[in-house]
Amino acid sequence: MRSCPERTNRSLLSNVLKRRNISIYPIGMKRAYDIRTPRGFLFSVTEAAIKKPGRKDLALIVSEVEASVAGIFTTNTVKAAPVRLCMQQIRSRRGQAIIVNSGNANACTGTRGMKDAQEMTVQISRCLDISPELTYCCSTGVIGTPMPMQRIIPAIGPLAGGLGLSSLADAAAAIMTTDTFPKVASRTISVTGRQGVIAGICKGAGMIAPRMATMLCFLITDIAVDAKTLQTALNNAVRKSFNRVTIDGDTSTNDTALIMANGVIGNRALKPTSRDYPAFQKALDDLTYELSRLIVKDGEGATKLVEVVVKGAKTEADAEKAALAIANSSLVKTAVYGNDANWGRIMAAAGYSYAKFNPDSTDIFFNKVQVVKNGVANNKDQEATKEMKKKELKITVDLHAGKASVSVLTCDLTEDYIRINAEYRT
Amino acid sequence: MRSCPERTNRSLLSNVLKRRNISIYPIGMKRAYDIRTPRGFLFSVTEAAIKKPGRKDLALIVSEVEASVAGIFTTNTVKAAPVRLCMQQIRSRRGQAIIVNSGNANACTGTRGMKDAQEMTVQISRCLDISPELTYCCSTGVIGTPMPMQRIIPAIGPLAGGLGLSSLADAAAAIMTTDTFPKVASRTISVTGRQGVIAGICKGAGMIAPRMATMLCFLITDIAVDAKTLQTALNNAVRKSFNRVTIDGDTSTNDTALIMANGVIGNRALKPTSRDYPAFQKALDDLTYELSRLIVKDGEGATKLVEVVVKGAKTEADAEKAALAIANSSLVKTAVYGNDANWGRIMAAAGYSYAKFNPDSTDIFFNKVQVVKNGVANNKDQEATKEMKKKELKITVDLHAGKASVSVLTCDLTEDYIRINAEYRT
Repeated sequence: MRSCPERTNRSLLSNVLKRRNISIYPIGMKRAYDIRTPRGFLFSVTEAAIKKPGRKDLALIVSEVEASVAGIFTTNTVKAAPVRLCMQQIRSRRGQAIIVNSGNANACTGTRGMKDAQEMTVQISRCLDISPELTYCCSTGVIGTPMPMQRIIPAIGPLAGGLGLSSLADAAAAIMTTDTFPKVASRTISVTGRQGVIAGICKGAGMIAPRMATMLCFLITDIAVDAKTLQTALNNAVRKSFNRVTIDGDTSTNDTALIMANGVIGNRALKPTSRDYPAFQKALDDLTYELSRLIVKDGEGATKLVEVVVKGAKTEADAEKAALAIANSSLVKTAVYGNDANWGRIMAAAGYSYAKFNPDSTDIFFNKVQVVKNGVANNKDQEATKEMKKKELKITVDLHAGKASVSVLTCDLTEDYIRINAEYRT
Repeated sequence: MRSCPERTNRSLLSNVLKRRNISIYPIGMKRAYDIRTPRGFLFSVTEAAIKKPGRKDLALIVSEVEASVAGIFTTNTVKAAPVRLCMQQIRSRRGQAIIVNSGNANACTGTRGMKDAQEMTVQISRCLDISPELTYCCSTGVIGTPMPMQRIIPAIGPLAGGLGLSSLADAAAAIMTTDTFPKVASRTISVTGRQGVIAGICKGAGMIAPRMATMLCFLITDIAVDAKTLQTALNNAVRKSFNRVTIDGDTSTNDTALIMANGVIGNRALKPTSRDYPAFQKALDDLTYELSRLIVKDGEGATKLVEVVVKGAKTEADAEKAALAIANSSLVKTAVYGNDANWGRIMAAAGYSYAKFNPDSTDIFFNKVQVVKNGVANNKDQEATKEMKKKELKITVDLHAGKASVSVLTCDLTEDYIRINAEYRT
């Protein structure tokens, strides 16, 4: 095993900062995405040829100082080794680095898988001269194949050495699997008069369904946030964003959302009672919603983004059940793909969702065109078909049973989804 | 509205029997399917051009004498008009005729839909000279379009008039929608020394998922069965057959299973305590299992029949949860289609099913090839890929958590499923 090339130095991080003349708290601007990067974070990507050669598949996100960390992990009983490792570490609510690989999920890999995840954490921490407990390891890709450590370990030195040469968007590109574009977004808010930034990246594309933190998402902010408060804020944000998107109804073994708040803008750590907390929560909500929207937009084989809004439900739980049933229905999704205003499938899906409602008082809209009035056809098929042909479709179902409302994002189901997933491993 | 052509006669049924020189209790044999038909039942089919012209889309099944009837109906909140009508009528546990149309589900059609279903029942009953309360109406096809009664009503006379000219298999063909072949099966058992027959037809293809009586299934027998006992027997049979198949996870608005027992072999009506009851239940179980298997085999776009067996579960509920999650997973089904022994997706699906198990002691087999041992790869990819290429695949997951076991039938997910459903209405 090669040791870290800068291992002898024992202070790579500060050396990098000096050598590259990077201001200690730079504000980055990625024009291509119009993304702001929070101060005090550095990025690196490299190629380890994990699944196949030819692309960067290792990413590193480092905070210049120790940060508060919060996380949400898959509810799947089958959890990948790195997920189990992260879940142990996050009890400290502290962290400084995240190492992520695509191409291999390190799931269903037994005791060897756990050793490999630990090894990755230890190696990169040594290079960065930080405690391995502050380094989180995440993986995404094929399940059941052991990690090619013979290729990953030699890449760890260059990964650490390249710190500061890459952008947050580069990291977003490196964590992609079947994604067709990198997903990155940011929000700026004012906290006690100082400008703070929250930014995030995520990857999705397949094995996407609620009941989890969903896929991989890494959020970073230069605002100081009390660690427990950070967890609450993350829970709130994920519940209404990542947990309300669905592509194929499959919940992954590796879903992870992590947030690091390094506090370099120097505010007093936010608590739920802080004056600026609501603005922080709102910015985080907006940011995660934007990221979750990007995931659905890039759903495997998708040609259309579909928002399913169920309103007038008796309870939020009812609204969510109905919206998820509609959003997960293969028949609804193929009809959307085929530009077929087949609202009967929407009625049927709401009907088997166990939400309580009276079919005879249900209304359905495709964008603004009302296709169902009191449970029967409103004879607007032609207008509706026109709406179906647009790139984005909003399906609104009004159950007229109460006041609760929920919105779920999904995409259409196409031949390309089949093709991508029939050929994924080969 | 045309009246029934033989309406004046008021005894069409007996006239038909005389005229056609059909023995009052014939035993039919359909060589093409090697199907036996129970005595005392007559069939007819005709074309009403309900969705489009060119095929028989109306079927009639009539018992020569009043029969015990039992039924199971969709659990969908949105129930088609004929389903709601059947549910009212079946309280009497008596019946003599079933009229079925394909091409239109008569669902989400409001008060007009209910009137139309009643009208079909009344018209055909008048022709047959039986009470409308003994006639059950079932529909399958597109949701949300009013029934073309202007074409159905004129077809009712010829439908009644043709009684005895068609076989059970003809009726099976007439109730097809996206099915590619008619589904018919029979079983013969001895009841107090007399030969009795149970036969059935069904249709499926799409919007197929458990939690229901599933799609349309009509069972007939010449064995006398006490009406309450018949319902129990049907419940038992459906639970382990139709409720354990899934094609796309969508539960329909029209799912109906009806059984008529006319008792013409002259046995004393079976009760749960009867000596011959277990044999009857077993024959019914076998028959419904065969029919449900035919439905999955003909799943929309399917190229393979997949049996998912989860064994070693703590409880039957756990086994069922895991088996259904695997069978419903789009990722598992596309991998099967692509001949990819991607068992990681099976582990993931079991993991999000909420079944209790330890991933590290889970084994997975593709037919007889063990691909997973104690939760990790058994390195049999090559042998497994060979198994995947067969037309029928049995996936066995042993959770090693208990003794419960459940089998669920499903099929692969292909581009053709997308094509069929993106274009269904056009």
